[in-house]
Amino acid sequence: MAQHTVEKTSVTLLGLGAMGTALARTWLAAGHPLTVWNRTPSRAAALAAEGAKAADSAAAAVTANTLVLVCLLDDASVDEALDGADLAGKDLVNLTTSTPAQARARAEWARERGARYLDGGIMAVPPMIGVPEAGGYVFYSGSRELFEQHQETLGTPAGTTYVGQDAGFAALYDVALLSAMYGMFAGAAHAYALIRKEDIDPTSLAPLLADWLAAMAPSVHQTAGQLRSGDYTKGVTSPLAMQVAGTQTLLSTADQQGVSPELLSPYFALMRRRLAKGTGEEDLTGVIDLLVH
Amino acid sequence: MAQHTVEKTSVTLLGLGAMGTALARTWLAAGHPLTVWNRTPSRAAALAAEGAKAADSAAAAVTANTLVLVCLLDDASVDEALDGADLAGKDLVNLTTSTPAQARARAEWARERGARYLDGGIMAVPPMIGVPEAGGYVFYSGSRELFEQHQETLGTPAGTTYVGQDAGFAALYDVALLSAMYGMFAGAAHAYALIRKEDIDPTSLAPLLADWLAAMAPSVHQTAGQLRSGDYTKGVTSPLAMQVAGTQTLLSTADQQGVSPELLSPYFALMRRRLAKGTGEEDLTGVIDLLVH
Repeated sequence: MAQHTVEKTSVTLLGLGAMGTALARTWLAAGHPLTVWNRTPSRAAALAAEGAKAADSAAAAVTANTLVLVCLLDDASVDEALDGADLAGKDLVNLTTSTPAQARARAEWARERGARYLDGGIMAVPPMIGVPEAGGYVFYSGSRELFEQHQETLGTPAGTTYVGQDAGFAALYDVALLSAMYGMFAGAAHAYALIRKEDIDPTSLAPLLADWLAAMAPSVHQTAGQLRSGDYTKGVTSPLAMQVAGTQTLLSTADQQGVSPELLSPYFALMRRRLAKGTGEEDLTGVIDLLVH
Repeated sequence: MAQHTVEKTSVTLLGLGAMGTALARTWLAAGHPLTVWNRTPSRAAALAAEGAKAADSAAAAVTANTLVLVCLLDDASVDEALDGADLAGKDLVNLTTSTPAQARARAEWARERGARYLDGGIMAVPPMIGVPEAGGYVFYSGSRELFEQHQETLGTPAGTTYVGQDAGFAALYDVALLSAMYGMFAGAAHAYALIRKEDIDPTSLAPLLADWLAAMAPSVHQTAGQLRSGDYTKGVTSPLAMQVAGTQTLLSTADQQGVSPELLSPYFALMRRRLAKGTGEEDLTGVIDLLVH
């Protein structure tokens, strides 16, 4: 039988920080011809030793292939790197951390230069790239045609989740999840602070804390359903009035343990503000509306 | 063969709010003789119709059995209910929401009156009581002998987790987990606020948010290991300096979406304070030390 080689899509990648380098290695390992560029050439030279072509300039790297991925420090670095590059006919995939507004402006900028545009938000740290069981993935939004055409190549370093044609949505989903994560980290920091001066090994609290947070995480489904329906009283098991009363024990405990309440008190203050509107039978969902101007 | 009936421990329960009533029903269903008392007698009458004995006073209910559980509104209600009751020789289990200091004082108070004492912190809402698959459980601390002797009876309404002889630890673990949960809720509230004015169905964000939070929850293990060792740089995948830089995108996005940063900015401020000490290679663990006076 004749052997057939499926030709892998050639990829250009601009930016070889920790994340870019991790991405690059997965395409090389999967047999994709790869052209790389980095502002500091030494990093490109290291990848050249592993089989990549190191371009002399970002413009030259862009010329090399139709599919161009960008993973730079910030939006200003994208401007700088692509200044003067010919983007006509290119499929530009921007993985650089951006705000939704930056992503939307970049999509328009790419359109004006004749390129299709896809924005990406990476939900992973570099050690998770190329490790499917680590569960990392990338939000994509913008050109659905570009996404569908290159989905296999884009899926090589990590999973892919397409969230809409609005180029800003990938960044918005990315920021939404990271914001929620920092809230959880803040809560966990407060929890550990509470036991800091006690004769309690933090590693004995850890499994209880991890299991509890994982068990409470699905409550965001109920919140979403309430936001969609506008009925914040549906399915409530701990009414706002009861929870506001309970926060006093949490604040008193923080005080007794010598722990600043600064990470929790803003949320408790919003709970009280919402309760003051006579919404004691509601869930905590009304707090969300107090955050939006 | 002769049939042997294993006699179930008789239980006294003071307090028939939503939680107390849920607890009571599980003991009745499991065949435990149950004596109840509630300040408002109508609730005790309802349970009497289901097989409980309704005592005329808290003191009489205490006299009825050795094992006495208390599930009242707050610590002051415990004082009020047990004023004048003879606690000598009793096994007192206090499930009333308390601070660690209140629990420790109550343990001393019980000891002075000749009772063994166990404090409990319930990690469940009433609908989870008697439903093992719901995963609710109760933290217990104080008399290990009391806990071990009555573990089966205590385990009827929900799982049991004994956390130490210090009577304050059950309340402390309870408050620590609830505090972490409110941090997570605050983060999720911010996430939903970010998409509030967009054409995005919140129920499409919910599964991504739930999975992400559940995936990030185990990071509390690394935090605990760092706290125990004192080395906050071990196993770091996103150094503090990089994360502080990244928070600018989160804050700019909140600003663009018309969302107040008040729930996240206190945590970000502590990250910056910690970074200012020259700890850019660390994890976020150092924030915890800034919370403790």
